Amino acid sequence: MSLVRLHVEHPLGEGQIVPLDPAQAHYLFGVMRLGAGAEVELFNGRDGAWRAEVAEAGKKRGLLACRARSAPQRDPPDLWLLFAPLKKARTDFVVEKATELGARRICPVQTEFTNAERIRRDRLQATAVEAAEQCGGTFVPEVAELVRLDRLLADWPEGRALMVADEALAGAASEQDLASAPAALLIGPEGGFSDAERGRLAARHEVTRLRLGPRILRAETAAVAALTLWQAGAGDWT
Amino acid sequence: MSLVRLHVEHPLGEGQIVPLDPAQAHYLFGVMRLGAGAEVELFNGRDGAWRAEVAEAGKKRGLLACRARSAPQRDPPDLWLLFAPLKKARTDFVVEKATELGARRICPVQTEFTNAERIRRDRLQATAVEAAEQCGGTFVPEVAELVRLDRLLADWPEGRALMVADEALAGAASEQDLASAPAALLIGPEGGFSDAERGRLAARHEVTRLRLGPRILRAETAAVAALTLWQAGAGDWT
Repeated sequence: MSLVRLHVEHPLGEGQIVPLDPAQAHYLFGVMRLGAGAEVELFNGRDGAWRAEVAEAGKKRGLLACRARSAPQRDPPDLWLLFAPLKKARTDFVVEKATELGARRICPVQTEFTNAERIRRDRLQATAVEAAEQCGGTFVPEVAELVRLDRLLADWPEGRALMVADEALAGAASEQDLASAPAALLIGPEGGFSDAERGRLAARHEVTRLRLGPRILRAETAAVAALTLWQAGAGDWT
Repeated sequence: MSLVRLHVEHPLGEGQIVPLDPAQAHYLFGVMRLGAGAEVELFNGRDGAWRAEVAEAGKKRGLLACRARSAPQRDPPDLWLLFAPLKKARTDFVVEKATELGARRICPVQTEFTNAERIRRDRLQATAVEAAEQCGGTFVPEVAELVRLDRLLADWPEGRALMVADEALAGAASEQDLASAPAALLIGPEGGFSDAERGRLAARHEVTRLRLGPRILRAETAAVAALTLWQAGAGDWT
């Protein structure tokens, strides 16, 4: 059996003692039934992965003692995933898959035809943490606050390429073009972009269009496919 | 608004009258509230997509009259997806995504460490139909019966390449190798292959290994990523 993996905020290193919050203590000692002396793997997104031993196990608290580093810190390439929120299960799915596939940052974007007015950022961040724990990584992508697409474009960082998965985006480069990092992937919303949004996107020099085959993909499928293509062609799969 | 799309078994063509079964009649007239004269799009996996008009709308029956072909028949490349069944929602997800991404055939496979003893083939086939209706395609992949991996390999068709997404598969070609169609993708089960299974796979000359990056992907993520890579590199996305 593989070790239980836990994301913590605390610094990790030789001899570090890591206190648990009540939810973590409940998970390790209540759900997973670990006791003093049991081994777990910890990561915090900065210091790699560490084997740690349960030093104290209480109902609502506990202490873990770092023993040895089990994996170096490994950050994914500087790729953002931008997508318009979907129904709950599919939004969770996109966050989970973006974490597994190695996005650096996940940005929910409000477009003209997006229904969501708000997201539960904390819940989505917890989904990313859980996915990172599951997939054996050492990095948790940040889930950003919901932002309007026009606002996002107005503040777009110099030098970051933007690849848009949208069939109807004209004007932008028509060839498949996997820009190198820093980069971002923007998945078209279920209802499509508005004409004004397409115009605004096509006018920007950072924008290229990403083609995802002859069939119409649902937004969450397009997200996974776009992340895969980019990682295989310009990311860390090569 | 785009047309309601419906998969039927009946032949489609100029002047064809297509009878509806009770479930289809309920969907069109009860759920979607269509009445006589309304337009829908039909496909049967053989004759392309056809615009049809509601000629008779009853509670448990109805007739549609084909008007004109709206799209030619378009079959995906000859690619099979082989995977070990997961929990219900994730198995449904794999079938839905394989349909969207253009697999020709979906084969649930029982491996030594697969928990599922049986699948609901009819339910998974219905999931594939629904996905094809949603994604605007004209083709529905066949969902095969659950078959044991050793049995499947014993009957493996001559000339069909088999790409295996499994980190620990030794002996097979170590380079990324996207074989051309006819081909199949085999996704490693959640519990991994047994040593005996790995040995049997590695011994076969049709088998190559497909690498899916440095992070550990869940089985359903690996399925989507593998389908994407193959379609983009050797399938109909190019």
